[in-house]
Amino acid sequence: MDPDINRRGLMLVLSSPSGAGKTSISRELLRREPTLSMSVSATTRPKRPGEVHGQDYFFVDATEFGLMVNRGEFLEHAKVFGNYYGTPRSYVEGKLSQGLDVLFDIDWQGTQQLREQAEADLVSVFILPPSTGELERRLNARAQDPAHVVAQRMSQAANEMSHWPEYDYIIVNRDLDASVAQVQAILMAERTRRERQIGLGDFVRRLRDGR
Amino acid sequence: MDPDINRRGLMLVLSSPSGAGKTSISRELLRREPTLSMSVSATTRPKRPGEVHGQDYFFVDATEFGLMVNRGEFLEHAKVFGNYYGTPRSYVEGKLSQGLDVLFDIDWQGTQQLREQAEADLVSVFILPPSTGELERRLNARAQDPAHVVAQRMSQAANEMSHWPEYDYIIVNRDLDASVAQVQAILMAERTRRERQIGLGDFVRRLRDGR
Repeated sequence: MDPDINRRGLMLVLSSPSGAGKTSISRELLRREPTLSMSVSATTRPKRPGEVHGQDYFFVDATEFGLMVNRGEFLEHAKVFGNYYGTPRSYVEGKLSQGLDVLFDIDWQGTQQLREQAEADLVSVFILPPSTGELERRLNARAQDPAHVVAQRMSQAANEMSHWPEYDYIIVNRDLDASVAQVQAILMAERTRRERQIGLGDFVRRLRDGR
Repeated sequence: MDPDINRRGLMLVLSSPSGAGKTSISRELLRREPTLSMSVSATTRPKRPGEVHGQDYFFVDATEFGLMVNRGEFLEHAKVFGNYYGTPRSYVEGKLSQGLDVLFDIDWQGTQQLREQAEADLVSVFILPPSTGELERRLNARAQDPAHVVAQRMSQAANEMSHWPEYDYIIVNRDLDASVAQVQAILMAERTRRERQIGLGDFVRRLRDGR
């Protein structure tokens, strides 16, 4: 990126069936990319041990969530496993206008809403598991989840995967490091896209005028 | 890239005013990217010392070039500094269908023709010099070119630069290594684009069916 040229941040959406490794990829990406931060969602789901309000989520009650929806304060919102999740619009806009990128860990429904609200800023990546066996293994490996939640997730996974054709980029996650490197390349490439660079017209005019 | 999924190669176009460093970037890219090779053009310009027919160019006379145009054998062709250059269609198609990428060092007019013929396979990158002074310095550094050719190129450079808004990606070439890394990221990202991966639908069906 040229010092004379600013850039508008982008919204990086990673979607996948649970168990495809998206959480590990996100964690590693955030470690490696200093201008990328996780979108902080509002949610009605109960706080889990170790989670911090305003950092992991904004934990709000169902009434407050409904008021936020009515005030148009969400870029997208959805009900997942009985709880509500939403992305506050002002939080994201603040980041993008400072040239910072925002990472979204949302499903196909949230992605469709984001696309309607902010298509030009959106870069969408779908992560697929390498095999059904590997997907089952990863879902069962989450010891804290009861069996009926795992079964619900396998069915949810098949449904989620049917939406891969709506995404810009598709990564089959065989190897964490390789997948993270692929997403980093997508970020680097998208940052050099003409339409995300602000001030190119003036820069070229100065070049042509010899100033 | 998943072993079950094939990909169609892409056509990477690098355009820039002469003197912006495109030739150095291309050379380094070809060294680093094993699936990328330079498009071999047909040309009517005289062979220079050290150039090899069929490797640097297919050297043909003006009559043969005209016949090739009439037979529709070029993806694009143009007259540059009094000589004709053209990209043989069959050569490129052969590479793309084998999943190999082809690099094009052509100007905005050639890029427009390629876009008309093969938009879906095209990835276009425009390289800008960091400053007018640097551009002049680089043009004068080409000792083998006479002064009137340098002057012609400065004027050509201003014209060429006016076409930056037609390109997908824009790179300001301040540092060779950084610019090469940016083009490599573009290649890696474009290779993971949904529409360049063949067999994703079958792959996801197998995942969902548990096979």
